[in-house]
Amino acid sequence: MSTSGDGGTLALGLPMAVPAPGLPARVRIHEVGPRDGLQNEKATVPTEVKAEFIRRLADAGLTTIEATSFVHPRWVPQLADAEQLFPQVRDLPVDLPVLVPNTRGLERALALDATRVAVFASATESFAKANLNRTVDEALAMFEPVVRQAKDAGAHVRGYLSMCFGDPWEGQVAVEQVVRVCRALRDMGCDELSLGDTIGVATPGHVGRLLTALNEAGVPTGSLGVHFHDTYGQALANTLAALQHGVTTVDASAGGLGGCPYAKSATGNLATEDLVWMLRGLGIDTGVDLDRLVATSAWMAGQLGRPSPSRTLRALSHKEQ
Amino acid sequence: MSTSGDGGTLALGLPMAVPAPGLPARVRIHEVGPRDGLQNEKATVPTEVKAEFIRRLADAGLTTIEATSFVHPRWVPQLADAEQLFPQVRDLPVDLPVLVPNTRGLERALALDATRVAVFASATESFAKANLNRTVDEALAMFEPVVRQAKDAGAHVRGYLSMCFGDPWEGQVAVEQVVRVCRALRDMGCDELSLGDTIGVATPGHVGRLLTALNEAGVPTGSLGVHFHDTYGQALANTLAALQHGVTTVDASAGGLGGCPYAKSATGNLATEDLVWMLRGLGIDTGVDLDRLVATSAWMAGQLGRPSPSRTLRALSHKEQ
Repeated sequence: MSTSGDGGTLALGLPMAVPAPGLPARVRIHEVGPRDGLQNEKATVPTEVKAEFIRRLADAGLTTIEATSFVHPRWVPQLADAEQLFPQVRDLPVDLPVLVPNTRGLERALALDATRVAVFASATESFAKANLNRTVDEALAMFEPVVRQAKDAGAHVRGYLSMCFGDPWEGQVAVEQVVRVCRALRDMGCDELSLGDTIGVATPGHVGRLLTALNEAGVPTGSLGVHFHDTYGQALANTLAALQHGVTTVDASAGGLGGCPYAKSATGNLATEDLVWMLRGLGIDTGVDLDRLVATSAWMAGQLGRPSPSRTLRALSHKEQ
Repeated sequence: MSTSGDGGTLALGLPMAVPAPGLPARVRIHEVGPRDGLQNEKATVPTEVKAEFIRRLADAGLTTIEATSFVHPRWVPQLADAEQLFPQVRDLPVDLPVLVPNTRGLERALALDATRVAVFASATESFAKANLNRTVDEALAMFEPVVRQAKDAGAHVRGYLSMCFGDPWEGQVAVEQVVRVCRALRDMGCDELSLGDTIGVATPGHVGRLLTALNEAGVPTGSLGVHFHDTYGQALANTLAALQHGVTTVDASAGGLGGCPYAKSATGNLATEDLVWMLRGLGIDTGVDLDRLVATSAWMAGQLGRPSPSRTLRALSHKEQ
């Protein structure tokens, strides 16, 4: 038996593009690798490498690339170079949202001409307490002036909501609680929400129930993104369920970089390559060149000195050898 | 920020059980770890360890466990102990199918009172040639007397069909070709078919299209199992699509053991733990005790001296430490 003849999966026309009924024609990938990914890497990545990473991601066709975070350097030393990094990439012809934890962070971002910002809220009291040392409502009150000021400055605001499907301290999280916080974030002016499964415990029925409840509560599905972690291997199945419920914005991290350092079971974001593979197979347009993306993530894994957890990346990189 | 309070995900009631519309109430997992898994491990596993593995899987609630293969020892030396192993486990109160490549293998299996056997066909000419040195139709002609003799002996016959979604030599595989071979296997008497994505290139729309085509061709969905590989991370999303099309039999391998040694990009079967996690979250009954399954696969990984690729296994094992 021979293994010859395997001349590159993509070149062989695989995956075969076969649309499924009821799915969107196009999906916008919100690439979080440079921020959510690198924030959670032990290695300190030089600013020049970060800038190159973002440029390569844009060159691979990603149109929304979360670039960095204007959180206090004490909390996230990996992204302490936001002031140096952002001006190096801000003229790229892509959307470059940045995370802002508070008014001070927002002002730093706006001073550098950032036009898209994101705040980071929690669906649960335990994580709000752990992450922000506040109750959920106190955290919302803290974000309210940040969002207002950002909107006044003409910026697009994304609201991240963590622990939407389970919490490592509380266990189950009621759908009604998530809906309540989503409504509050919308009411204060967030243009877009990202539903985070921070510890990776969501399953497809749960995803569908939350999206249905949000729709019924008047939160437009078009304003929602999903942010799944692959801790239990469920991220892509959950993404499929979200697409079936009308979601068209999916967060992913090139090469599967990152996770959450404050939730020990959060072992990684959905890898952008695995997502692009599925969407390509479904005939859904993303604008991403998978070969270029794989080359970029393989290069970044080399910079970090560790292999990527992305299965598609490993399969396609293997082919190239 | 603290990571304390994480006292075991399952004990916290996670994943939350939220059914999705249109899915089956119960799924039968066809566990392939002891055969398809161990067949593809470099390490030679002692017969006693294999028997203990099967006993532990049965104790964890798996009801169909593919035990071994009666292929010639020269081709699969890892399973050369089929004659010694099978009598050690055949009295377990579970179904224990065995692979039989030809009449000789079938006779060996029947002599040991095997009541469920499986043959292994190919949907593509290239893989039939590589795996069996025959055309597809020549291979079907070879299996015909095997299936007839097995049925005459009262055995249940499963027909594996490999390369249903793509072939490493040919690239795309026409749905019509897969339907044709499935029809032939059904016509010769196979009770059940397992649709194999041997190189892991299936995506959910493709899964739906094939299942729809088989249904339209008169192959009952209830006679179909799906056998996905996680080479590109798609196995669980594809499984969800299959469940949505009425499939209730899913192949999986404890701890994600195995793959296919003759297709270099086939890096692993769907891990049973990741499947059970999703089904548990969907409120679908499998009869499997996830804690016991994780303990079994962790033990087996120790026997093999390598970590398991199952994400659920790693996440839950981490919790226990």
